[in-house]
Amino acid sequence: MSKPVRVGICGLGTVGSGTFNVLTRNAESIAARAQGAVEISMVGARRDNPDCELGSTRLSRDIFDVVRDPEVDIVVELIGGTTVAKDLMTEALQNGKHVVTANKALIAEFGNELFALAEQNNVVIRYEAAVAGGIPIIKALREGLAGNRIEWLAGIINGTGNFILSEMREKGRDFADVLAEAQALGYAEADPTFDVEGIDAAHKLVILASLAFGMPLQFSSVFAEGITKLTPQDVEYAEELGYRIKHLGVAKQNGEGVELRVHPTLIPEARLLANVNGVKNAVLVEGDAVGPTLYYGAGAGAEPTASAVVADIVDLARELSAGQQCRVPALGYVTSELKDLPIVPMARVTTAWYLRMEAEDKPGVLSEIASIFSEQGISIEALIQKAPAEGETRVPLIMLTNKAIQGNVDTAVAAIESLESISGEVTRIRVEALDG
Amino acid sequence: MSKPVRVGICGLGTVGSGTFNVLTRNAESIAARAQGAVEISMVGARRDNPDCELGSTRLSRDIFDVVRDPEVDIVVELIGGTTVAKDLMTEALQNGKHVVTANKALIAEFGNELFALAEQNNVVIRYEAAVAGGIPIIKALREGLAGNRIEWLAGIINGTGNFILSEMREKGRDFADVLAEAQALGYAEADPTFDVEGIDAAHKLVILASLAFGMPLQFSSVFAEGITKLTPQDVEYAEELGYRIKHLGVAKQNGEGVELRVHPTLIPEARLLANVNGVKNAVLVEGDAVGPTLYYGAGAGAEPTASAVVADIVDLARELSAGQQCRVPALGYVTSELKDLPIVPMARVTTAWYLRMEAEDKPGVLSEIASIFSEQGISIEALIQKAPAEGETRVPLIMLTNKAIQGNVDTAVAAIESLESISGEVTRIRVEALDG
Repeated sequence: MSKPVRVGICGLGTVGSGTFNVLTRNAESIAARAQGAVEISMVGARRDNPDCELGSTRLSRDIFDVVRDPEVDIVVELIGGTTVAKDLMTEALQNGKHVVTANKALIAEFGNELFALAEQNNVVIRYEAAVAGGIPIIKALREGLAGNRIEWLAGIINGTGNFILSEMREKGRDFADVLAEAQALGYAEADPTFDVEGIDAAHKLVILASLAFGMPLQFSSVFAEGITKLTPQDVEYAEELGYRIKHLGVAKQNGEGVELRVHPTLIPEARLLANVNGVKNAVLVEGDAVGPTLYYGAGAGAEPTASAVVADIVDLARELSAGQQCRVPALGYVTSELKDLPIVPMARVTTAWYLRMEAEDKPGVLSEIASIFSEQGISIEALIQKAPAEGETRVPLIMLTNKAIQGNVDTAVAAIESLESISGEVTRIRVEALDG
Repeated sequence: MSKPVRVGICGLGTVGSGTFNVLTRNAESIAARAQGAVEISMVGARRDNPDCELGSTRLSRDIFDVVRDPEVDIVVELIGGTTVAKDLMTEALQNGKHVVTANKALIAEFGNELFALAEQNNVVIRYEAAVAGGIPIIKALREGLAGNRIEWLAGIINGTGNFILSEMREKGRDFADVLAEAQALGYAEADPTFDVEGIDAAHKLVILASLAFGMPLQFSSVFAEGITKLTPQDVEYAEELGYRIKHLGVAKQNGEGVELRVHPTLIPEARLLANVNGVKNAVLVEGDAVGPTLYYGAGAGAEPTASAVVADIVDLARELSAGQQCRVPALGYVTSELKDLPIVPMARVTTAWYLRMEAEDKPGVLSEIASIFSEQGISIEALIQKAPAEGETRVPLIMLTNKAIQGNVDTAVAAIESLESISGEVTRIRVEALDG
C-alpha cells in the first residue's frame, strides 16, 4: 500500500457528518478499494454536529484553514451556497487541492470558471453528489455511456417535488396541504421555492445536459416551471387517461440545438419513471448505441449523498495513491472539445400537451375548439368531456394533443381563451411518451 | 492530443460488428472524451459480417494475429466460449495487451487466474459488457458505490428468461410455447439451456457478487434453478396475491457468509424490478450508505453490448493516452484484500415461499397442513383455496409463508407430500420482498 490520501471536510451539516461517518465506518473496505488508506486529516466547521463523533480528527472553526492546510490532498466542500463556497473552492484549487463537492448550485452557475481554474492548477473537481444524491449518474454519463451519442435524458431529480406529487396522486390531497407536511417532515425547506419552482431541478439538469452533450454549463438558459399550480383534478384526469404527472428535467438534442426544460409532465403509467414515488430520484438516458437506460435511488439524505462524495474520493485516491493524474475531464469531454450548442427557444419545442378548460355545456363549442386546433395543425389524441355537475352550465373539457410546436399551441390556446364559451385560463401540462 | 490508442477486435459476430460500428460512428466524440484518438488497428475474424464495413482496417482470418500484433494496445475479445477465448486472452495478456471482453462465462469460470495473469503482466482486463449488456453496473459496483458496504443485490440478468416470463404473464401463454417464439425471434439460442436453466444468470451473478463483496469468483458455488417448470397457473396465482414472478439472481451477505442463488422469485408488484419487462435487464443494489439503487437497460444486442465494450475502451484510453496505469482493480478491491467468504448452503438460506399443492376437498386437510408448518416454525402469510372444478374432488391450495429457513421448509414439504390427502408434488417458488 502507498501513502495515505488525506481528506479535509468543510462543513459538518447533514452531508458533512454523513461523509465523515461513512469514511470512518467503511475505512477498511475503502482502503482496499482505493489501493491505500483514505484519512480524514481535518474538519472545518463553525459548530459541532451531534450525529458525528470527530474523535482525534483535527478541527478548525475556520473552514478556510482546511484549504490552506499543507497536509490536505482533497478538499470536500459541503457548506452549500454560492458565495463563501465559491471563495473556498477557488482558494482550494489555487492551493493545488483536488475538490469534491455536493454543491449543485455552485457547479451549475459557476462550474465553467471553476473547472478552468482547476485545470490551470492541475487538479480536478468532482461532483457526483450534486445530482440525484447517491445515484452514480454523473459517472454513468461521463464514463459508463462514453461510447454513445446521448440523444436525450429525462429525470425526476427533485425528491421534495416527487414526494408532493406522489402524495397528491395516492391520497387525492392538494399541493399546499402536502407541502406543509413535507416541510414538517424535513423534506422541504422553510423556503420551498428552490424545490417547488424547479430551480433545484434546473441546477441539476444543466449539469446532466453538459455531461450528456459535451457543452459548457448554461444555467441561465434552462426553462423552469414548478409544480405549485397543479391541482388534484389534473392528477386525477391524467390517471383517467393512463398517465401520471411527474416533475421532470428534460434535456434533448435535436437538429436545431438543445432543449433544456424543467416542468410538470404527463408520463404513460407503464413507464418505470412513472412508478418512481416518494422522495426517490431516477434518470432515464437514451444513447444511440445503448438505447434507454435508467438509474434510480435516493436523491438526498445524509448517507446517500455521502455515498456519492466518497465514491469521488475513492476515484481520486486510486490515482493519487500512485502519484498519477486524474484523467477524466470534469464534463467528460476535453475542455477544448466542449461545444456551445444553441438552446432551442421554448416556442420551438415540440411536445404533446394535456389541456383542461371550462366550457359552456352547449352545442358548437367543441367544433369551435376543434377548428382552432386544426388551423394550427394540432390534432387531438384523446378527449374527456364530463357531464355538468348539478346546477352547473359549464363542464370541464380535457384533451391530449399529438406532438405540436409550442408556438402553435400558444396561438391556439390564446384563441380558445378568447372564446365566449370558455371561462378562465386553459390549464396546460406537457406530455412525454419517453419512448425514444 | 496524445498518440492514438490502438484497438484490435477479435470476433466479428453480433457484438464485434456492433463494437466496430460504434467506435467508427462515434469516433469524434470518443476521442474528445478519451483525450486522444481511439483507432481500430486490426480485426481478426474467420468470416466477414455484412453488418459492418471494414474499409481499410487490417483484417486477419487468424484471430491470434491480433494478440501478436505489435501495434495493438487493447485486445477486444468477442469470440465467446471458454476454450479458444481463454487461450486468446492468455496470450494477449502475456504479450502485454490490455483486454476488454464481453465474455461472462470466461470471466465467471476463469476470472481469478486471468486477473492474476493480467496483474503479473502489468495490464488490466475490463468486462463491463459481460453483465447486463449496456447497463454500466460493473462500474457502479466497482466505482460508483465504492463508499458502501454492499448488503445485497438482486437482478433480472437474463433477457431471454425475462421475455419468456413477461409473455407468460401478459398473455397467459405457457413456457414451451413462448420459448419456441423466443427462438424464432432470435432472443433464445437453438440450445436454450444456458438461458432457461439459469446458467447464464449464474455466470453474471457470480461476477456481480465478487464486485459487491470483494471476494474471488466462485462460480461453482452458485445455486441455479431455471424457469422451465413454471406454469401459467403459478404466474396467475402470484398475480392474484399481488406478486409477479421474475427470474432473479440474488447475492446477499449475512452473518454466516454469502448467499449466491438464481431462481424464479415472486416480487411484490409495486417494485420497479417487478415492472421490468421483455428482454430488458435491471439490477437492484442495496448499500449501507446509499440504500437501494437500481440500474436498468438493454441486457443484450449488438450496440447495447458494444456501448459497454466501448466504455471500457474509453476508460483505458483515458489513462493510456497519457502513459498512465489503470488503477481500478479488476474486482474493485486490491487482489490481496479479496476475502474468500463462505457460501451459505441453500438449506440455511432464509426466504419466504409460495407453495402450491393439490388437496382433497374434505374437512381436516388444512388443519393437517397447518400443524406440519407449525411444527417447523413456519407461519402462513396468505392462502388461496379455490372451489373444486365441476366433477373434481381435489382443489388447488396456494400459500405464501413468512420467512423461513429452507431446511425447515424442505422438511415441511416432504411431510405434506406424504399426506394421503395431497396428490403429487408441492410446487415451490421463493418470495423476495426486496425492501432492504
